Amino acid sequence: MKLKQAIIVRTDLGMGKGKIAGQVAHAAVQAAESIRRYCPDWYYSWLEDDDGIQTKIILKVDSEAKLQALSRDAFVQGINPAKIYDAGRTQLEPSTFTAIGIGPAPEYKLDPLIKDLKLL
Amino acid sequence: MKLKQAIIVRTDLGMGKGKIAGQVAHAAVQAAESIRRYCPDWYYSWLEDDDGIQTKIILKVDSEAKLQALSRDAFVQGINPAKIYDAGRTQLEPSTFTAIGIGPAPEYKLDPLIKDLKLL
Repeated sequence: MKLKQAIIVRTDLGMGKGKIAGQVAHAAVQAAESIRRYCPDWYYSWLEDDDGIQTKIILKVDSEAKLQALSRDAFVQGINPAKIYDAGRTQLEPSTFTAIGIGPAPEYKLDPLIKDLKLL
Repeated sequence: MKLKQAIIVRTDLGMGKGKIAGQVAHAAVQAAESIRRYCPDWYYSWLEDDDGIQTKIILKVDSEAKLQALSRDAFVQGINPAKIYDAGRTQLEPSTFTAIGIGPAPEYKLDPLIKDLKLL
């Protein structure tokens, strides 16, 4: 069973590349920790996969509404998403919803959720 | 004791923002997992810090040599860094050393290592 993690970030907020990378890193760590706690089999299979690299895919959406819809879809699919809100100390308004992390999870569950999204 | 995680990425490789975000996410997850195993007190203090967000700082260097030097310095300081090598399937040559993650670790240990680096 192949596993991967998807991270989806908003591109409509005008974030710079450092800001984007930070939001993606938050989503990756929080989603991984969430799966480690609630589905350790998925987490450790992913951590120690054959490639030696934890497969990740970084995708984009252009609105908060699309991020919310993805969060709901992931939840319904049985993968609790990590939702990232920026503290708003630098470039953004406080509590801006910037990104989500989904998984690691089996591809047969994850791929249908993200099939229409484009790579960042 | 305030803790944070530093992620340092090379900017001399011509990586796009999606590629950069992916390397940063790999470094964040691998460094966090490494600290969880070898110094769980640091990991859980950081995970549950007062802000509810795991403090991260994303920095840049412009050469492999600087990334290697930082890795050595972190190791000497007692923080085992996560070194990220790209598989080279897309934009880069195989086994390109792209990024490192350091910590979460106490700021008094981490800050001296990164004081001369610029934000990504």
